[in-house]
Amino acid sequence: MRDGPGYNSPMSDHQPTIFDKILAGEIPCWKVYEDEHVLAFLDIGPLSDGHTLVIPKERKAQLHQLSDESAAAIGRVLPRLCRAVLRATGAGAYNVLQNNGAEAHQVVMHVHFHIIPKFGSEGLGIGWPARTLSAETARELQEKIRRELEA
Amino acid sequence: MRDGPGYNSPMSDHQPTIFDKILAGEIPCWKVYEDEHVLAFLDIGPLSDGHTLVIPKERKAQLHQLSDESAAAIGRVLPRLCRAVLRATGAGAYNVLQNNGAEAHQVVMHVHFHIIPKFGSEGLGIGWPARTLSAETARELQEKIRRELEA
Repeated sequence: MRDGPGYNSPMSDHQPTIFDKILAGEIPCWKVYEDEHVLAFLDIGPLSDGHTLVIPKERKAQLHQLSDESAAAIGRVLPRLCRAVLRATGAGAYNVLQNNGAEAHQVVMHVHFHIIPKFGSEGLGIGWPARTLSAETARELQEKIRRELEA
Repeated sequence: MRDGPGYNSPMSDHQPTIFDKILAGEIPCWKVYEDEHVLAFLDIGPLSDGHTLVIPKERKAQLHQLSDESAAAIGRVLPRLCRAVLRATGAGAYNVLQNNGAEAHQVVMHVHFHIIPKFGSEGLGIGWPARTLSAETARELQEKIRRELEA
């Protein structure tokens, strides 16, 4: 069944997206899970079978804007959703990815977590140009991040 | 200051990793945040400045094995950590990535979320070989995933 959930009229300061229409039931989705704060449905442009999107009902573009409550609700249900996707697809590996900003590959400007099963070369492609963290840079970043967390 | 947090002796069925030693304070880390369930510290092989790891104190290899409580605690603090990393680095975009299984680029077999600031070409590289979801495949996957969630 292709269906839409009830809409909880979140407060928002960001532009409407297609996910608002899905949340409002105006556009159908392949829903797999819904609770008070969270909706999960199949990505219609999947990287692999079982590629699932998990979104907050709260209308925020990016993760750092999301309320603690919505973020905790998504966190809480992720293991359960991952277990179901793994069992349903038989995948043995998977990536959970959440992009913020067009530069970071975000397309729909409403927070979403991807659960992407990995089957050999199928699934998420990852480029990992790691470098080494110097003690000087580390100290400076650690201090700045801690200061921001305390602010 | 490079320091280690207190260790909460979680029950576990997985092999010890370097993160156990960090949690036990036996190996130092560039800690930026700690609470009852969560530790966050700078990745020493960063993809960009501010690349931060967020891990549960619960010793589980992969996200689908994690308790709801630990997963909710990580979810809850992610927005706050992302805000701090953005402010500290001046980044305007970022990816949150969580890998499960060697095939999906997981190296340390203890759950960890990466917060990876994106600066132009610096940061996470993403390959996105999307295809189209057929209604037939969608129906089948939706049914299987829902069945697993209800099990």
